[in-house]
Amino acid sequence: MRIEVISSVNEARADRFTHRTAIVIDVLRATSTMVTALGAGAASIYPVETVLEARTLQRQGYTLAGERFCRKIPGFELGNSPEDFTPEIVEGRRLVLTTTNGTRAIHKAMRADFVLSAALLNASACARSAMELRRDVVLLCAGCHDDFALEDGLCAGMIIDRMQALSSTSIDVDDFGTAMQGFYQSSKERITEILKGSSSGKRLIKMGFSRDIDSCAQIDTSSIVPKLQGDMIIIG
Amino acid sequence: MRIEVISSVNEARADRFTHRTAIVIDVLRATSTMVTALGAGAASIYPVETVLEARTLQRQGYTLAGERFCRKIPGFELGNSPEDFTPEIVEGRRLVLTTTNGTRAIHKAMRADFVLSAALLNASACARSAMELRRDVVLLCAGCHDDFALEDGLCAGMIIDRMQALSSTSIDVDDFGTAMQGFYQSSKERITEILKGSSSGKRLIKMGFSRDIDSCAQIDTSSIVPKLQGDMIIIG
Repeated sequence: MRIEVISSVNEARADRFTHRTAIVIDVLRATSTMVTALGAGAASIYPVETVLEARTLQRQGYTLAGERFCRKIPGFELGNSPEDFTPEIVEGRRLVLTTTNGTRAIHKAMRADFVLSAALLNASACARSAMELRRDVVLLCAGCHDDFALEDGLCAGMIIDRMQALSSTSIDVDDFGTAMQGFYQSSKERITEILKGSSSGKRLIKMGFSRDIDSCAQIDTSSIVPKLQGDMIIIG
Repeated sequence: MRIEVISSVNEARADRFTHRTAIVIDVLRATSTMVTALGAGAASIYPVETVLEARTLQRQGYTLAGERFCRKIPGFELGNSPEDFTPEIVEGRRLVLTTTNGTRAIHKAMRADFVLSAALLNASACARSAMELRRDVVLLCAGCHDDFALEDGLCAGMIIDRMQALSSTSIDVDDFGTAMQGFYQSSKERITEILKGSSSGKRLIKMGFSRDIDSCAQIDTSSIVPKLQGDMIIIG
């Protein structure tokens, strides 16, 4: 088994996903929100790239969620803060989610045999699922705008670490993945601090979303692995 | 002071270097070779991008060195193995060097106020020079073909670690640099092993250059900081 890591959505070419399991990572906040929303009982999440697409789906009974520049989109019921996705609000509902990088990353990965969503919240569960699917794995760090995001690299490193612990045979990890695993190993005792010091973390704190960082920094609190089925993300 | 790290030469846009100190890193092997060649008494190194350019310079009395696909170029006196660059062969001579990624990276960085070359061999010396130059710093990892190379990331992480230790004020490091510093911190006790397990390392071993890895894995054995002056690299 081989694991490769793509440093940001801009680096992702569709052909790198063929015959693989793709794991999309956007810790702050899209994939953390997906895990939380499905955990709170949302029926499904439809990831779309544009606000216009989302608005078109509203008439079909979808609940709209998402952000642009960290903020809730005008006319949308929900933003991209995991804590907004409570059972009272989302249970049984079909959501549409559009975010700057996270939903774009899901679309980029669609050529893969399987597309999973990972955050720190479900990293170990996601590592287990990926092992069970028995394909080579591509971890796609969504990143922030056009750049690598520290928290996504940290999560990629953690998933690789978990997969190696679960595997009885040796796993071949590419150079970028090896670096991320090393980074995770040196940082695992101070996850929240790392998230707060990252570019995305600093931006969220500035905009008043520091509670989101605390929720997204929790490790393995969920066993839910969001998985793409057709166009929809459901519990895998 | 701010430090940014570019993951491979393909990611380098010229405008990121303006008003900065650029540190070009190609541990296996171009920048290790530069440090070794200048340490052995070479008068200067002229980094050129093409074999044709190098051949044109031969008539002007330059000694040609370089590689394509890890191997010495036909008609060149020297390859890209640091140990070929002994005082007997290079003392007082003006060299031309052309390599797949390393010399390309030097050219990409030319818009910077200062361009230094770093390897593990001179990482601390290079960190000190960069501090003295009092500019923001961009570390350019040359990488391997179009990708990130583990050994270049490791060296970038080490230089950041050294610069932070030397600085009395706090240094602002970008997300990629922070990840590389963490990777270095978790790997510093097994540098040679990391280099041998990297993609470039495995390729060099396969082609019979494993002694080069041992020479390039030495830490801080040189105080020489190769520096670009006009078109030439000399001792800074």
